[in-house]
Amino acid sequence: MGQQKLIWCSQPYEPGLLEMLRSAADPEELILAWSQNASNLAGVVRDERLLSDCHIAIGQPDPQDVIDSTSLEWVHLTSAGYTRYDTDAVRQAVRARGMIVTNSSQVYDEPCAQHALAMLLAMTRQLPRAVRDQATQAWHYNAIRRDSLVLARQTVAIVGMGTIGKRLAELLGPFGCKVIGFRRSVSGSESVPTHSIDQLDESLPNVDVVINTLPASSSTANFFDHDRFARFKPGSLYINIGRGDTNDQRALAFALTQGQIAQAYLDVTTPEPLPADHVLWTTPNCHITPHTAGGWADEFARQLEHFIDNLRLFRSGQPLLGRILDR
Amino acid sequence: MGQQKLIWCSQPYEPGLLEMLRSAADPEELILAWSQNASNLAGVVRDERLLSDCHIAIGQPDPQDVIDSTSLEWVHLTSAGYTRYDTDAVRQAVRARGMIVTNSSQVYDEPCAQHALAMLLAMTRQLPRAVRDQATQAWHYNAIRRDSLVLARQTVAIVGMGTIGKRLAELLGPFGCKVIGFRRSVSGSESVPTHSIDQLDESLPNVDVVINTLPASSSTANFFDHDRFARFKPGSLYINIGRGDTNDQRALAFALTQGQIAQAYLDVTTPEPLPADHVLWTTPNCHITPHTAGGWADEFARQLEHFIDNLRLFRSGQPLLGRILDR
Repeated sequence: MGQQKLIWCSQPYEPGLLEMLRSAADPEELILAWSQNASNLAGVVRDERLLSDCHIAIGQPDPQDVIDSTSLEWVHLTSAGYTRYDTDAVRQAVRARGMIVTNSSQVYDEPCAQHALAMLLAMTRQLPRAVRDQATQAWHYNAIRRDSLVLARQTVAIVGMGTIGKRLAELLGPFGCKVIGFRRSVSGSESVPTHSIDQLDESLPNVDVVINTLPASSSTANFFDHDRFARFKPGSLYINIGRGDTNDQRALAFALTQGQIAQAYLDVTTPEPLPADHVLWTTPNCHITPHTAGGWADEFARQLEHFIDNLRLFRSGQPLLGRILDR
Repeated sequence: MGQQKLIWCSQPYEPGLLEMLRSAADPEELILAWSQNASNLAGVVRDERLLSDCHIAIGQPDPQDVIDSTSLEWVHLTSAGYTRYDTDAVRQAVRARGMIVTNSSQVYDEPCAQHALAMLLAMTRQLPRAVRDQATQAWHYNAIRRDSLVLARQTVAIVGMGTIGKRLAELLGPFGCKVIGFRRSVSGSESVPTHSIDQLDESLPNVDVVINTLPASSSTANFFDHDRFARFKPGSLYINIGRGDTNDQRALAFALTQGQIAQAYLDVTTPEPLPADHVLWTTPNCHITPHTAGGWADEFARQLEHFIDNLRLFRSGQPLLGRILDR
């Protein structure tokens, strides 16, 4: 592994972070490459060599370029999601060439889990309503107190129980909630009781808070549809920090209007941005953040640190963090 | 203690809860009394006997009636705050007659701590901004992500570290923050490092989040004034769930405008409701809830349960929960 590795980077890091990346690589190595397919590259150091000449890629390379490359040994995605890469063609190329693919779940678990808890507590404490009241200097003391909730002993279902869900369950620990997970493949080593997602429907009538962290895929498209929302406990709370197309948005608007769901908080929609005339913008008790659950001031520094950690492991031949598409 | 105790109640519990109170008392005891000084009594059972004839009072009796009564053995306040009763005259009457006074801190610690964490996470995750953006269907993806924060390793100062602060520190546990308390009398048995409030000023420049839980008193009036806000770490966050007059509101508006404080979230103001033309309603990054931190759907049931727990202790001669004004 001592040979020179060309690192292709499509993430437009600011100069200070690019310097961090340059320091982490051997000086004689070329650090940044530039790709026509990486639309948002604004790197300081540019090179005409495309992804196909490089050994390592960090960023969001075009999946077809990954398939076509004969030199790539490792692709490090700067996102947690990897739906674009989760195809038979990419998987086949990965297997055929023994390529490593890693994602950045570890970077985004913490902000996403904190964002989900922020959304949940905002709903139980009626914060969106008070923010709206502030525009008219309204002081709805009795109504807001009466409609506020204390989080304790409620049942919270985390659907798509993965690394975000695991962290969220830790954050919920001191509240004394009953947290249960649902996922496609139960490993048995989950930190909270976790069931097959096939068992969700029978549990839903007893769940107070449903937190959707499902990734986008053909099997999760419109997973929360009209029939499933109809099984929700009346007056329950719903959060989506997964992907917008994992719920039927018209069905969600209907469930909110009927009171089947008391409040919903969405960080993801279909499409994004949500069109100005979409019904969810104005559906009562539907609150929206613009896909910001994973963001924070130090996001890109942390993202790069995560890559550099992995670069050290890669060079020493150790297993990388966040490996995906390897099965 | 076997003799009949007349219980005076000024809290207008709904019929179901009044029935709970009636069941908890001996049947031959008169349960509810009516007082001209209890403005909000709407009890089912009314009696002309005033507070002065009763042995136990639950609610918010007039402090002067408490002083004047010769029969009162125990006053149970349905609030956590007791500023109106914390006077030399009441203390003297309490001491002179060996009267017991209890408050309902235990009822309000949990919602208040959850409310404070909700406010804190709403600020770190930019929720109020997104709620306001929703009115215009704005999708400020980059700006909101960049301004979001992850709560970890920050220093959180809880000022007035009492039972709410203790619970809040527990809720903050999994976040990995450095939580420090400040209070007038440090007991040494606090669950987090707690210092004399006299040491707050030297710590403030290193504190990221200041949570004010101070009660109202002559010593806390305008405790957070212009000079103290000027010592805040630039860009820090400020929460007030104590009492509105513990901070100088004009000085707070100034600190927010200057960016000394990045965002403030207030549950208490002076006066309440905050007048429609008050500058804090429209000060940028100032968020307000209308004194709802302690409220929730089951508030009055829990309030009454707490009284009934204490009633059992009172009857069996055991120490009561939440005793105040006894020193």
